[in-house]
Amino acid sequence: MAFPTTEHPAREKGMFFRGCQLTQRVCLVGVPWQLSPSLFCIKEFTDASISHLHNAYPSVSILLEPHTAHEIHGDLPFPTYSGEISMWSPQIFHDKVDLVVTLGGDGTILRASSLFASSDNVPPMLSFSMGTLGFLSEWKFPEYKRAFREVYMSGAGVEARNVALDDSMSAPAGPADNAGPTGWSSIRGKSMGPSRAAKVLMRNRLKVGVFAADGTPLTSAGAATPSSISLHAMNDVIIHRGRDPHLAVVEVFVGGRFLTEAVADGMIVSTPTGSTAYSLSSGGSIIHPLVSSILLTPICPRSLSFRPLVLPAGTPITLKLSDKNRGREVEVSLDGVRRKESMSVGMEVRVTGEELKRAGSRIYSGVPCVMRRGGAAGEGDDGWVGGLNGLLKFNYPFGEES
Amino acid sequence: MAFPTTEHPAREKGMFFRGCQLTQRVCLVGVPWQLSPSLFCIKEFTDASISHLHNAYPSVSILLEPHTAHEIHGDLPFPTYSGEISMWSPQIFHDKVDLVVTLGGDGTILRASSLFASSDNVPPMLSFSMGTLGFLSEWKFPEYKRAFREVYMSGAGVEARNVALDDSMSAPAGPADNAGPTGWSSIRGKSMGPSRAAKVLMRNRLKVGVFAADGTPLTSAGAATPSSISLHAMNDVIIHRGRDPHLAVVEVFVGGRFLTEAVADGMIVSTPTGSTAYSLSSGGSIIHPLVSSILLTPICPRSLSFRPLVLPAGTPITLKLSDKNRGREVEVSLDGVRRKESMSVGMEVRVTGEELKRAGSRIYSGVPCVMRRGGAAGEGDDGWVGGLNGLLKFNYPFGEES
Amino acid sequence: MAFPTTEHPAREKGMFFRGCQLTQRVCLVGVPWQLSPSLFCIKEFTDASISHLHNAYPSVSILLEPHTAHEIHGDLPFPTYSGEISMWSPQIFHDKVDLVVTLGGDGTILRASSLFASSDNVPPMLSFSMGTLGFLSEWKFPEYKRAFREVYMSGAGVEARNVALDDSMSAPAGPADNAGPTGWSSIRGKSMGPSRAAKVLMRNRLKVGVFAADGTPLTSAGAATPSSISLHAMNDVIIHRGRDPHLAVVEVFVGGRFLTEAVADGMIVSTPTGSTAYSLSSGGSIIHPLVSSILLTPICPRSLSFRPLVLPAGTPITLKLSDKNRGREVEVSLDGVRRKESMSVGMEVRVTGEELKRAGSRIYSGVPCVMRRGGAAGEGDDGWVGGLNGLLKFNYPFGEES
Amino acid sequence: MAFPTTEHPAREKGMFFRGCQLTQRVCLVGVPWQLSPSLFCIKEFTDASISHLHNAYPSVSILLEPHTAHEIHGDLPFPTYSGEISMWSPQIFHDKVDLVVTLGGDGTILRASSLFASSDNVPPMLSFSMGTLGFLSEWKFPEYKRAFREVYMSGAGVEARNVALDDSMSAPAGPADNAGPTGWSSIRGKSMGPSRAAKVLMRNRLKVGVFAADGTPLTSAGAATPSSISLHAMNDVIIHRGRDPHLAVVEVFVGGRFLTEAVADGMIVSTPTGSTAYSLSSGGSIIHPLVSSILLTPICPRSLSFRPLVLPAGTPITLKLSDKNRGREVEVSLDGVRRKESMSVGMEVRVTGEELKRAGSRIYSGVPCVMRRGGAAGEGDDGWVGGLNGLLKFNYPFGEES
Repeated sequence: MAFPTTEHPAREKGMFFRGCQLTQRVCLVGVPWQLSPSLFCIKEFTDASISHLHNAYPSVSILLEPHTAHEIHGDLPFPTYSGEISMWSPQIFHDKVDLVVTLGGDGTILRASSLFASSDNVPPMLSFSMGTLGFLSEWKFPEYKRAFREVYMSGAGVEARNVALDDSMSAPAGPADNAGPTGWSSIRGKSMGPSRAAKVLMRNRLKVGVFAADGTPLTSAGAATPSSISLHAMNDVIIHRGRDPHLAVVEVFVGGRFLTEAVADGMIVSTPTGSTAYSLSSGGSIIHPLVSSILLTPICPRSLSFRPLVLPAGTPITLKLSDKNRGREVEVSLDGVRRKESMSVGMEVRVTGEELKRAGSRIYSGVPCVMRRGGAAGEGDDGWVGGLNGLLKFNYPFGEES
Repeated sequence: MAFPTTEHPAREKGMFFRGCQLTQRVCLVGVPWQLSPSLFCIKEFTDASISHLHNAYPSVSILLEPHTAHEIHGDLPFPTYSGEISMWSPQIFHDKVDLVVTLGGDGTILRASSLFASSDNVPPMLSFSMGTLGFLSEWKFPEYKRAFREVYMSGAGVEARNVALDDSMSAPAGPADNAGPTGWSSIRGKSMGPSRAAKVLMRNRLKVGVFAADGTPLTSAGAATPSSISLHAMNDVIIHRGRDPHLAVVEVFVGGRFLTEAVADGMIVSTPTGSTAYSLSSGGSIIHPLVSSILLTPICPRSLSFRPLVLPAGTPITLKLSDKNRGREVEVSLDGVRRKESMSVGMEVRVTGEELKRAGSRIYSGVPCVMRRGGAAGEGDDGWVGGLNGLLKFNYPFGEES
Repeated sequence: MAFPTTEHPAREKGMFFRGCQLTQRVCLVGVPWQLSPSLFCIKEFTDASISHLHNAYPSVSILLEPHTAHEIHGDLPFPTYSGEISMWSPQIFHDKVDLVVTLGGDGTILRASSLFASSDNVPPMLSFSMGTLGFLSEWKFPEYKRAFREVYMSGAGVEARNVALDDSMSAPAGPADNAGPTGWSSIRGKSMGPSRAAKVLMRNRLKVGVFAADGTPLTSAGAATPSSISLHAMNDVIIHRGRDPHLAVVEVFVGGRFLTEAVADGMIVSTPTGSTAYSLSSGGSIIHPLVSSILLTPICPRSLSFRPLVLPAGTPITLKLSDKNRGREVEVSLDGVRRKESMSVGMEVRVTGEELKRAGSRIYSGVPCVMRRGGAAGEGDDGWVGGLNGLLKFNYPFGEES
Repeated sequence: MAFPTTEHPAREKGMFFRGCQLTQRVCLVGVPWQLSPSLFCIKEFTDASISHLHNAYPSVSILLEPHTAHEIHGDLPFPTYSGEISMWSPQIFHDKVDLVVTLGGDGTILRASSLFASSDNVPPMLSFSMGTLGFLSEWKFPEYKRAFREVYMSGAGVEARNVALDDSMSAPAGPADNAGPTGWSSIRGKSMGPSRAAKVLMRNRLKVGVFAADGTPLTSAGAATPSSISLHAMNDVIIHRGRDPHLAVVEVFVGGRFLTEAVADGMIVSTPTGSTAYSLSSGGSIIHPLVSSILLTPICPRSLSFRPLVLPAGTPITLKLSDKNRGREVEVSLDGVRRKESMSVGMEVRVTGEELKRAGSRIYSGVPCVMRRGGAAGEGDDGWVGGLNGLLKFNYPFGEES
């Protein structure tokens, strides 16, 4: 079955996601998701939840990822779209999907994000953990009715990172709920009220390009990201010697200036979101996702003095495979997906923070993640603290009974 | 000799950098310090340089720090001001000084900065190293004629951190030379041209308050910062058990939410500028000064899992001395200066990033540090990379002859 | 009340572990403490346990530490000794006490050990935790009947560190129960059998001397260790700048050769036992107590490249306060007890592993700690693994419910 | 040309290595290298040095590693042995070679050592660096005449690690030159005297076995170590996920007891010699080679609390690939050489310190490395300190000009 856009009545009705009106959608992060309501399911989805979506939000079109579809498609009493999905160009993905729902751990979210690696715009992500808790997956699956309701009914305030500051001098960049600057409150319409609203955390991404030794941009960037010069990563870009027994020698440039020659297993360039992933294992600090920055963390460097660095998000970082590698190659991975082509001597990985986008007076960037508000007033505002303690066992106290 | 303001003709003429004329004051980040006014010398200053200043810039009034004055005052053939300086209220300092010149290492700069700990506005700092290189002291002393000329003749572009973004979407937060957004170009006037201009790096500070167990703000904040509820720190605020043989137990709150109970020698809350100071020694990452953030780094924690954290600059952080300390006290230091009063059980140190200030359409904050431009085009743009390699011996290579 | 030795009938009978009979004293590591003698109570001891001791082991003389005595002495229906304890010379302690029982955490054990800081011989220690678990306190208090029985009835095998190897080629230095080489089995006598025997872990100590700038040994070593040239530490020797705002500059010599100049808060020289104390907080590795070694760990060094070191136990290490400290002093602590006298420029702390002692064909050293055998055959053989997991939360897994 | 053992007259004459008499050879580390004098050249050897050997020590037979032979064999005016070397069984290597001379960096030494991975006895190694300095290669090539003379004429004292202690109570395990306990001095004969003698550092190895899930030992251990159940490693045994994007899950047992489940890129089990290799890059402490121990260091663990461990050399350590890896395999490397066969779920790598060997009253173990004595009296006694500073840039000072 083809997937003509005209088959999406919800779009006609402009009903989806963050309230009923198109203008509301526009407000979420500043860009209209003009082509609305299909849901892109990344992983196994129980009949119950899909049925709930279908019944409670009849205007929503549901789109299943192929292998999810393969598992459950036949069991549903109503149509979903999945058949030709593998044939779509990424651009169609980017145009058609208004909300991504993930079911699984952090790896699933990364996989979902990587489907939009070549796109400047990422639809909001609503992430359910399916047992194992993850640092990124905000919602527990049994909460799905509440989660969809919050997304559908009221919308979410956007954290004010990199948002124009002219209206928000008193709370410039903090993790507070900046309903004002996002302009959300003024158009919330039939919202269930701010206490019921979901929040959206904008997770900035890295913009990544791979270049040949002669400076030619290389278009193919691996399996999941078929064709683009610039790719995006939500967690990190990693180069690693892989199976090669020799350490990689990498020239690191920061802001166009030579910083250092790393002799190491590899190098990580990470977002703050990725600071709790590989960078953490490699000794990096933990960076709050709202700190506009890029992390540069070495993997097992042959050095006593290669401390991890945190740079401004806009800093251009270049990793160049040195001639000293004598023809050996290294592997390049974005968000855990390895590029098919290795990186050979002279090639460069160029990274910087994702550019800001604007829509009217709004400025935004990154992957909009629908956050789970805690029950108590301020308690759940920042899942980050909870994640540090509950998941990472941050500063876990000595001497108590486990 | 008193220090009446009327003795400063330059101010009458509206020629001060931070002087009487609104338009000039407004232009903090972009106006030429055309006739740079009073110089506040923190440390030994050779006769030659002072005489040069006096002769080359006759409208400049020179102010010496008392013990500097004590050493050289009598030798100068022209008047300087220093006599009653120790009697001034901090507010007078803050009003009278338009440029701070430091001669010495990083410690001298911190000492200069701490004189403005209770002020929202800090005059620009021009820092000369006197032999030992420091991470903060940009200029070598023999360059003093050039340094003063750059400051005097042309002014400096300001790094665009936290500056209103409405005119600068294309280069939002990077370390690039944002002549445009700072508004500098339009008022540079008789500048020697951008290639001769000094740059100013705004080093954000921490805003710090100490509170009694009952929530009362404590006004006195130690020797160098006589009286203010809110103090500022350029590097860090540290609580430390000092000589007490028992580890301190500190409750840490982030954004109003309990994060963890630290059992440690102490805790560091640091700016990015301070990331290469005590935080570095305690295992923290190195943060570029333009990353708008606060670091939370434990000092010798009794934990395997207390990784340093980096938080958004606007995050309120509270360190509360736990009841578990059983009456023991800890010491509080700002930028290396210990408060006279210890911190007892129940007391809190509350820290957040310095608030943004605005003047017209400009937004700024922090300590303006006059940077040294390198000779080559891009070479000296970012002293940070040079400092990592030259001073910190970052990633110093193995196996080479020293 | 005086504490005449003649009041100790047990000693007359030659029943002490480290008592009057030469042959028994010699057998430090292998003789059953058949009639365990005086008990030296370090801290609060409930009436119940003391009465149990008194009744079950009537030949045992009980000696209370003064402030313990102060709390409970009056309540006991039988005599204990404590009155003049504070007047005794350390040598009397060393001669009279055959078993030290501690009740409390690791701090209490260190305090007990520090009472023998100036002695080459330390009686066995039986350590009960009183609620809070510690890494050193093996026994839970409710187990006291069993603990005393194991000590009394059967004795303990000694871990074979530094024991002559001629009889133990097949199990040279491991954590196995080396009943053979310790000679224990041959003299166990009316033991309850090896399965009921306690084990003894010999925790090696550091031998420490403080020397004036001219090389003169300084005799006084602080409050708890009144007079001796050589002192011993079970955990660590630390020099620290204390309240001084300036970093200490310490010249470090290893094996008589200059190693490095440390610029730091301080330096730790630690035993493997102390590797889970301050050294751990300062970033040191965890060393099993049977690795014959000394750790050298910096405290907050101003360096990116000061990795902790582990040296052979016999290595002489010298920490010398450099002239660069310009008259400033640092503090010296042994096992957490600060010396009254600070260390001034030119002074040295010289440290090496405790010398081996021999008795006949036996070689031994350190503090004999009575270990708790687990219930299952091999399960409790090594409390170290249990301590890592249970107390230090070593490699505590992510993502599980706490 | 075949390589019959009878063609080695030097052996008949008992002339080799450490002096002229068999009894002297016996004394080196306690075991007679009964079959003498062939030199096993690992890497390119210039004509000059070979000719020097041939002329100065005519009784010495020279043996070239095949690819070294390939390069220079034809140029020499006298016969060397290399032709069938690749056909020899390891046992023949082990029997025929009395001194290994390496020319190259640390990698070359590891490669030489790995040729004896399946042997309990390793001949002494004399290592020349060929430009790049290494931590293990003691001698600079231009010193070759002196080096051979020291080896030939006088012999070397052996560091007394693990040597029977009965004669050496006063200097048990330190880095001092223990001429006495090694028994060397008494038989030195026509030595040039102790001041000219080379020293030998015994570098302990790991003993490694790989076992199938059912406990069957796996005989083949990779390219360089054709067939043996137990292999030895001088630096480390590493398991690593290699190219697999998923972290490895490894169950770690210590002394037969479950310690922890590592979720990581991999795990390193290292000797102290290897503590400056991969373990250092992974955050391990630096361990002096005379500390009898095994290091357990994780590679990029997914944990905040996996601190490196140091265990007694005799501790059995088992790394078992957990069922949680779901069929994925990891790679196993010994001293940088990857085993051909991966490690699959359920398989184990079992490691412990190399067993002690004895000869008469001597006890020894490991790889005997001929050390370079410094010119000054004590200066060169311990190349370790020099290596830390000169090669690793240990505690490299801030702020000085490089």
